[in-house]
Amino acid sequence: MKGVILQDSRFIKRIKKRESTVQKEMGGDRTAYSNVEYYPLITSRSDDATNFSMRIYKIGANGHTGTHKHSYEHEVYVLKGKGCLLLDGIKLPIEKDDYFIIHPYEFHQLLADEEMLEFICIVPNKLKNQPE
Amino acid sequence: MKGVILQDSRFIKRIKKRESTVQKEMGGDRTAYSNVEYYPLITSRSDDATNFSMRIYKIGANGHTGTHKHSYEHEVYVLKGKGCLLLDGIKLPIEKDDYFIIHPYEFHQLLADEEMLEFICIVPNKLKNQPE
Repeated sequence: MKGVILQDSRFIKRIKKRESTVQKEMGGDRTAYSNVEYYPLITSRSDDATNFSMRIYKIGANGHTGTHKHSYEHEVYVLKGKGCLLLDGIKLPIEKDDYFIIHPYEFHQLLADEEMLEFICIVPNKLKNQPE
Repeated sequence: MKGVILQDSRFIKRIKKRESTVQKEMGGDRTAYSNVEYYPLITSRSDDATNFSMRIYKIGANGHTGTHKHSYEHEVYVLKGKGCLLLDGIKLPIEKDDYFIIHPYEFHQLLADEEMLEFICIVPNKLKNQPE
Protein backbone atom coordinates (compact mmCIF):
# COMPACT_ATOMS: atom_id res chain seq x y z
CA MET A 1 0.00 0.00 0.00
CA LYS A 2 2.85 2.33 0.71
CA GLY A 3 3.81 2.31 -2.97
CA VAL A 4 0.34 3.32 -4.05
CA ILE A 5 0.22 6.20 -1.61
CA LEU A 6 3.63 7.42 -2.74
CA GLN A 7 2.61 7.26 -6.38
CA ASP A 8 -0.59 9.20 -5.75
CA SER A 9 1.27 11.89 -3.82
CA ARG A 10 3.20 12.77 -6.98
CA PHE A 11 -0.01 13.95 -8.61
CA ILE A 12 -1.70 15.73 -5.73
CA LYS A 13 -2.09 19.35 -6.74
CA ARG A 14 -0.10 18.78 -9.93
CA ILE A 15 -2.78 20.58 -11.93
CA LYS A 16 -3.01 24.10 -10.58
CA LYS A 17 -5.95 26.45 -10.92
CA ARG A 18 -5.39 30.02 -12.02
CA GLU A 19 -8.23 31.35 -9.86
CA SER A 20 -6.72 29.89 -6.68
CA THR A 21 -3.17 31.11 -7.39
CA VAL A 22 -1.87 33.31 -4.61
CA GLN A 23 -0.43 36.76 -5.27
CA LYS A 24 3.11 37.25 -3.92
CA GLU A 25 5.21 40.22 -3.02
CA MET A 26 7.79 41.01 -5.69
CA GLY A 27 11.41 41.31 -4.63
CA GLY A 28 13.79 44.16 -5.43
CA ASP A 29 13.07 47.87 -5.56
CA ARG A 30 9.44 48.26 -6.62
CA THR A 31 9.06 51.99 -5.96
CA ALA A 32 8.83 52.69 -9.72
CA TYR A 33 6.02 50.15 -10.12
CA SER A 34 2.38 51.17 -10.20
CA ASN A 35 -0.64 48.91 -9.89
CA VAL A 36 1.23 45.65 -10.58
CA GLU A 37 0.30 42.23 -9.16
CA TYR A 38 2.66 39.28 -9.32
CA TYR A 39 1.73 35.57 -9.29
CA PRO A 40 4.44 32.89 -9.39
CA LEU A 41 2.88 29.89 -11.16
CA ILE A 42 5.66 27.29 -11.62
CA THR A 43 8.95 27.77 -9.79
CA SER A 44 11.97 25.78 -8.66
CA ARG A 45 10.90 26.21 -5.06
CA SER A 46 7.27 25.15 -5.40
CA ASP A 47 7.48 22.69 -8.30
CA ASP A 48 11.08 21.58 -8.59
CA ALA A 49 11.27 23.37 -11.95
CA THR A 50 14.87 22.99 -13.06
CA ASN A 51 15.40 25.39 -15.93
CA PHE A 52 12.79 28.13 -15.97
CA SER A 53 9.92 29.64 -13.98
CA MET A 54 6.46 30.68 -15.16
CA ARG A 55 4.85 33.74 -13.62
CA ILE A 56 1.85 35.96 -14.31
CA TYR A 57 1.80 39.73 -13.99
CA LYS A 58 -1.41 41.72 -13.82
CA ILE A 59 -1.02 45.42 -14.48
CA GLY A 60 -4.13 47.38 -13.60
CA ALA A 61 -5.58 50.11 -15.85
CA ASN A 62 -2.92 52.75 -16.54
CA GLY A 63 -0.42 50.95 -14.31
CA HIS A 64 3.14 50.04 -15.24
CA THR A 65 6.24 48.16 -14.16
CA GLY A 66 9.44 50.06 -13.48
CA THR A 67 11.89 50.58 -16.31
CA HIS A 68 14.68 48.11 -15.73
CA LYS A 69 17.13 45.71 -17.31
CA HIS A 70 18.84 42.54 -16.14
CA SER A 71 21.13 39.75 -17.27
CA TYR A 72 18.38 37.31 -18.21
CA GLU A 73 15.66 37.18 -20.84
CA HIS A 74 11.87 37.25 -20.58
CA GLU A 75 9.51 35.36 -22.83
CA VAL A 76 6.06 36.87 -22.65
CA TYR A 77 2.59 35.83 -23.79
CA VAL A 78 -0.25 38.33 -23.32
CA LEU A 79 -3.39 36.74 -21.87
CA LYS A 80 -5.65 39.77 -21.52
CA GLY A 81 -5.91 43.48 -22.23
CA LYS A 82 -3.90 46.03 -24.17
CA GLY A 83 -0.87 48.12 -23.42
CA CYS A 84 2.65 48.60 -24.61
CA LEU A 85 6.18 47.38 -24.21
CA LEU A 86 8.71 50.17 -23.93
CA LEU A 87 11.92 48.59 -25.18
CA ASP A 88 15.12 50.62 -25.09
CA GLY A 89 12.96 53.73 -25.49
CA ILE A 90 10.86 52.39 -28.38
CA LYS A 91 7.10 52.06 -27.73
CA LEU A 92 5.59 48.83 -29.07
CA PRO A 93 1.81 48.25 -28.75
CA ILE A 94 0.81 44.85 -27.33
CA GLU A 95 -2.52 43.12 -26.84
CA LYS A 96 -4.11 39.76 -26.02
CA ASP A 97 -2.43 36.83 -27.81
CA ASP A 98 0.71 38.79 -28.74
CA TYR A 99 4.00 37.25 -27.67
CA PHE A 100 7.61 38.41 -27.63
CA ILE A 101 11.06 37.98 -26.18
CA ILE A 102 12.94 40.62 -24.18
CA HIS A 103 16.65 39.90 -24.50
CA PRO A 104 19.19 40.19 -21.67
CA TYR A 105 20.20 43.78 -20.82
CA GLU A 106 17.43 45.43 -22.84
CA PHE A 107 15.81 48.25 -20.89
CA HIS A 108 12.13 47.42 -20.69
CA GLN A 109 8.89 48.56 -19.15
CA LEU A 110 5.37 47.18 -19.52
CA LEU A 111 2.40 49.54 -19.36
CA ALA A 112 -1.33 48.86 -19.33
CA ASP A 113 -3.92 50.80 -21.31
CA GLU A 114 -7.35 51.71 -20.01
CA GLU A 115 -7.95 48.11 -18.96
CA MET A 116 -5.97 45.48 -17.08
CA LEU A 117 -3.02 43.92 -18.92
CA GLU A 118 -2.29 40.32 -17.93
CA PHE A 119 0.62 38.29 -19.25
CA ILE A 120 2.67 35.16 -18.68
CA CYS A 121 6.38 35.85 -18.21
CA ILE A 122 8.98 33.07 -18.30
CA VAL A 123 12.46 33.53 -16.83
CA PRO A 124 15.44 31.18 -16.55
CA ASN A 125 16.18 29.62 -13.16
CA LYS A 126 19.46 29.11 -11.32
CA LEU A 127 20.22 32.80 -11.41
CA LYS A 128 21.81 35.04 -8.92
CA ASN A 129 18.96 37.24 -7.72
CA GLN A 130 16.50 34.86 -9.28
CA PRO A 131 13.14 36.58 -9.55
CA GLU A 132 11.12 33.87 -7.85
CA MET B 1 21.91 56.90 -40.57
CA LYS B 2 23.22 53.38 -40.52
CA GLY B 3 23.04 53.31 -36.72
CA VAL B 4 19.41 54.35 -36.74
CA ILE B 5 18.50 51.67 -39.22
CA LEU B 6 20.31 49.04 -37.19
CA GLN B 7 18.56 50.11 -34.00
CA ASP B 8 15.16 50.02 -35.65
CA SER B 9 15.81 46.58 -37.10
CA ARG B 10 16.06 45.19 -33.56
CA PHE B 11 12.37 45.95 -33.06
CA ILE B 12 10.93 45.01 -36.42
CA LYS B 13 8.56 42.12 -35.84
CA ARG B 14 9.58 41.88 -32.19
CA ILE B 15 5.90 41.78 -31.17
CA LYS B 16 4.38 38.73 -32.81
CA LYS B 17 0.71 38.14 -33.49
CA ARG B 18 -0.89 34.85 -32.56
CA GLU B 19 -3.25 34.95 -35.53
CA SER B 20 -0.40 35.21 -38.01
CA THR B 21 1.73 32.48 -36.43
CA VAL B 22 2.53 29.71 -38.88
CA GLN B 23 1.85 26.07 -38.09
CA LYS B 24 4.90 23.82 -38.41
CA GLU B 25 5.45 20.14 -38.91
CA MET B 26 6.43 18.40 -35.67
CA GLY B 27 9.58 16.30 -35.67
CA GLY B 28 9.95 12.72 -34.47
CA ASP B 29 7.48 9.86 -34.82
CA ARG B 30 4.01 11.36 -34.89
CA THR B 31 2.05 8.26 -35.90
CA ALA B 32 0.44 8.05 -32.43
CA TYR B 33 -0.76 11.66 -32.65
CA SER B 34 -4.29 12.55 -33.69
CA ASN B 35 -5.59 15.97 -34.66
CA VAL B 36 -2.65 17.94 -33.24
CA GLU B 37 -1.35 21.25 -34.60
CA TYR B 38 2.00 22.68 -33.54
CA TYR B 39 3.04 26.36 -33.56
CA PRO B 40 6.55 27.37 -32.47
CA LEU B 41 6.24 30.89 -31.00
CA ILE B 42 9.66 31.83 -29.58
CA THR B 43 12.68 29.67 -30.43
CA SER B 44 16.46 29.84 -30.49
CA ARG B 45 16.39 29.73 -34.27
CA SER B 46 13.80 32.43 -34.90
CA ASP B 47 14.36 34.69 -31.89
CA ASP B 48 17.79 33.93 -30.49
CA ALA B 49 16.13 32.52 -27.35
CA THR B 50 18.96 31.19 -25.24
CA ASN B 51 17.42 29.05 -22.54
CA PHE B 52 13.90 27.96 -23.46
CA SER B 53 11.37 27.88 -26.28
CA MET B 54 7.67 28.76 -26.23
CA ARG B 55 5.29 26.76 -28.39
CA ILE B 56 1.52 26.35 -28.75
CA TYR B 57 -0.26 23.07 -29.35
CA LYS B 58 -3.82 22.90 -30.59
CA ILE B 59 -5.50 19.54 -30.12
CA GLY B 60 -8.79 19.28 -32.02
CA ALA B 61 -11.96 17.78 -30.48
CA ASN B 62 -11.24 14.24 -29.26
CA GLY B 63 -7.67 14.42 -30.55
CA HIS B 64 -4.54 13.55 -28.58
CA THR B 65 -0.77 13.59 -28.58
CA GLY B 66 1.13 10.34 -28.47
CA THR B 67 2.11 8.89 -25.09
CA HIS B 68 5.77 9.64 -24.67
CA LYS B 69 8.53 10.65 -22.27
CA HIS B 70 11.82 12.49 -22.66
CA SER B 71 14.74 13.88 -20.72
CA TYR B 72 13.40 17.42 -20.42
CA GLU B 73 10.47 19.05 -18.66
CA HIS B 74 7.38 20.82 -20.00
CA GLU B 75 5.73 23.78 -18.38
CA VAL B 76 2.18 24.14 -19.65
CA TYR B 77 -0.51 26.83 -19.47
CA VAL B 78 -3.94 26.00 -20.93
CA LEU B 79 -5.33 28.80 -23.08
CA LYS B 80 -8.58 27.24 -24.30
CA GLY B 81 -10.80 24.20 -23.96
CA LYS B 82 -10.95 21.15 -21.74
CA GLY B 83 -9.27 17.77 -21.75
CA CYS B 84 -6.92 15.76 -19.64
CA LEU B 85 -3.30 15.06 -18.92
CA LEU B 86 -2.51 11.37 -18.70
CA LEU B 87 0.56 11.28 -16.47
CA ASP B 88 2.24 7.95 -15.80
CA GLY B 89 -1.18 6.32 -16.28
CA ILE B 90 -3.08 8.73 -14.01
CA LYS B 91 -5.82 10.81 -15.68
CA LEU B 92 -5.89 14.44 -14.58
CA PRO B 93 -8.62 16.78 -15.91
CA ILE B 94 -7.40 20.11 -17.28
CA GLU B 95 -9.14 23.21 -18.57
CA LYS B 96 -8.60 26.84 -19.55
CA ASP B 97 -6.28 28.71 -17.14
CA ASP B 98 -4.91 25.54 -15.50
CA TYR B 99 -1.14 25.18 -15.48
CA PHE B 100 1.28 22.42 -14.57
CA ILE B 101 4.76 20.99 -14.94
CA ILE B 102 5.59 17.64 -16.52
CA HIS B 103 8.90 16.49 -15.09
CA PRO B 104 11.67 14.77 -17.10
CA TYR B 105 11.00 11.10 -17.89
CA GLU B 106 7.32 11.17 -16.88
CA PHE B 107 5.17 9.36 -19.43
CA HIS B 108 2.59 11.85 -20.62
CA GLN B 109 -0.20 12.32 -23.09
CA LEU B 110 -2.53 15.27 -23.63
CA LEU B 111 -6.08 14.66 -24.81
CA ALA B 112 -8.83 17.07 -25.85
CA ASP B 113 -12.48 16.78 -24.84
CA GLU B 114 -15.37 17.58 -27.14
CA GLU B 115 -13.82 20.93 -28.02
CA MET B 116 -10.36 22.12 -29.05
CA LEU B 117 -7.70 22.17 -26.34
CA GLU B 118 -5.04 24.84 -26.79
CA PHE B 119 -2.03 25.30 -24.55
CA ILE B 120 1.35 26.98 -24.28
CA CYS B 121 4.20 24.54 -23.72
CA ILE B 122 7.68 25.68 -22.70
CA VAL B 123 10.76 23.47 -23.14
CA PRO B 124 14.44 24.04 -22.39
CA ASN B 125 16.78 24.78 -25.30
CA LYS B 126 20.25 23.49 -26.10
CA LEU B 127 19.06 19.91 -26.09
CA LYS B 128 19.98 16.98 -28.20
CA ASN B 129 16.89 16.37 -30.31
CA GLN B 130 15.59 19.75 -29.30
CA PRO B 131 11.89 19.93 -30.14
CA GLU B 132 12.03 23.15 -32.13
